[in-house]
Amino acid sequence: MRISELSRVSGVPVATVKFYLRERLLPEGRLTSPNQAQYDDTHVQRLRLIRALVGVGGLSLAAVREVLTQIDEPTGLTLDLLGTAHRVVAPDLPDDVDLTPVLGLLRRWGWNACADVVGNDDESRIDDALAALAVALGGLDDAGFEVDLPKLDRYAEAMMQVARTEISGLPVESATAAVRYVVLGTVLIEPVLLALRRLAQREASAARFPLPGP
Amino acid sequence: MRISELSRVSGVPVATVKFYLRERLLPEGRLTSPNQAQYDDTHVQRLRLIRALVGVGGLSLAAVREVLTQIDEPTGLTLDLLGTAHRVVAPDLPDDVDLTPVLGLLRRWGWNACADVVGNDDESRIDDALAALAVALGGLDDAGFEVDLPKLDRYAEAMMQVARTEISGLPVESATAAVRYVVLGTVLIEPVLLALRRLAQREASAARFPLPGP
Repeated sequence: MRISELSRVSGVPVATVKFYLRERLLPEGRLTSPNQAQYDDTHVQRLRLIRALVGVGGLSLAAVREVLTQIDEPTGLTLDLLGTAHRVVAPDLPDDVDLTPVLGLLRRWGWNACADVVGNDDESRIDDALAALAVALGGLDDAGFEVDLPKLDRYAEAMMQVARTEISGLPVESATAAVRYVVLGTVLIEPVLLALRRLAQREASAARFPLPGP
Repeated sequence: MRISELSRVSGVPVATVKFYLRERLLPEGRLTSPNQAQYDDTHVQRLRLIRALVGVGGLSLAAVREVLTQIDEPTGLTLDLLGTAHRVVAPDLPDDVDLTPVLGLLRRWGWNACADVVGNDDESRIDDALAALAVALGGLDDAGFEVDLPKLDRYAEAMMQVARTEISGLPVESATAAVRYVVLGTVLIEPVLLALRRLAQREASAARFPLPGP
């Protein structure tokens, strides 16, 4: 198909398609004349992925590029894929987070694959998901909001159930499918989970504190 | 204590304390002379609550006022408290969200207390938590990211476990304690849960795709 058709099918304006081509986020088409190229279904899929990453995912162009690099040069390590996905969508975190309390929690839960990452890297790169947990727990502390260990344990257990379901459904037939699943799953499922938690709170609250009958 | 002492103990600058007094977010002290008032521990607690709501919670002054009104004029209905908490911390949502698909899900899960809220109000006020779920699910749809029903069921189940733990721990001895718990719990626990999910994904991924040994 020509670029106008590619634009129509993918829903991405021609100018934007040309921009992605210039930025090398989208591979060039097959030249059929000096001024004309043919595109195929892989271009359509790629454009849809970029659009989802930029649009609903809210990723920057740099983040999109990082994700696409993972797709184009797959390492075969899903852990790397998750790492990239989490890094690109994670909020900016301070560099000097103390991970010691979080490490204790990970060991407590037997999450040793995560715990082993820390300090395991020559550049001593802080793992972003660990830092995010440390910052979040620090926020509770600052506000004087106490969450005891048994409650944290249950949070961890519930999130492990969520994660197991998600990882067991991870498509392995292609790196593109996997990165789509991981990145979109990370970005787009978060608001679903938070909304579900709020509704579940309402529901559990209604069970504990029934409204007076009519 | 005098206002300078109140400022020192609460960690809130005197100018800010005066601002909260003018805005009537903080009750006046007991006048001991035309220009001097005495404050007590209830003022300290109140200032800490305001600080947590504004600071870590990131609430606007209007949202803080709404929460404080709930504390000062408690209705005794925890459902109202949760509603206020969720409304003030929820992102802005469009008004014209179609709740039909979400209602189907709620009935499927037997979350009837939530489902019954819809259309039950003369002003046909859309419940924010319901709208948030509808918008989040709409985002998945737009991105062509399919989440099948069994997976949604597991998400709902995991979040219900989280919510049950939270609601069973809700303090009932005072409205202040309850609103602190609900609002801070809503705002400050969300990043904890999201960070835990990411770590759990790494952990589950390492279990499914073990790294090659040394």
